[in-house]
Amino acid sequence: MPDDNTVLIGKKPVMNYVLACITFFHGGAKEVSIKARGQSIGRAIDVAEVVRRRFLPDVKVKNVGIGTDKIMPLEEGRQLTNVSSIEITLER
Amino acid sequence: MPDDNTVLIGKKPVMNYVLACITFFHGGAKEVSIKARGQSIGRAIDVAEVVRRRFLPDVKVKNVGIGTDKIMPLEEGRQLTNVSSIEITLER
Repeated sequence: MPDDNTVLIGKKPVMNYVLACITFFHGGAKEVSIKARGQSIGRAIDVAEVVRRRFLPDVKVKNVGIGTDKIMPLEEGRQLTNVSSIEITLER
Repeated sequence: MPDDNTVLIGKKPVMNYVLACITFFHGGAKEVSIKARGQSIGRAIDVAEVVRRRFLPDVKVKNVGIGTDKIMPLEEGRQLTNVSSIEITLER
């Protein structure tokens, strides 16, 4: 799946990301991938659920993957930290 | 799968829930289900990742399901609210 159909979830309101997903599907995408890390993970699920329950009922959750990413510390001398991640693949 | 092999994630430290999962597996469970809602969802993924990466490398993520639960409001006259949920099934 090409990376351009990926919505990266940050701190913005859920509806911003919902709109991004809908735009991909309206542009002809068959699959859209929603990715998030750490505290944004809950919002990623909110986005997937709002897209398929409120706006595009023909969209299904194809796959949900979880994992761990290593984060480089901002300050020197500190250790790598682990952060959980999620990738939700929606399919039309 | 029987409901007794389920760990419900709340606001306690991640290691509390990790220990609960490990206890189930050490008691002979083949599958353990980790469930969370709303703001605890990120912690559920942390628990699954710590269990399988740090303590039980033979445990795999069998399935991850996402959904929406309806929450009864505490005060009368307010509407039902939706909250996202996750269920992670670990398998040995």
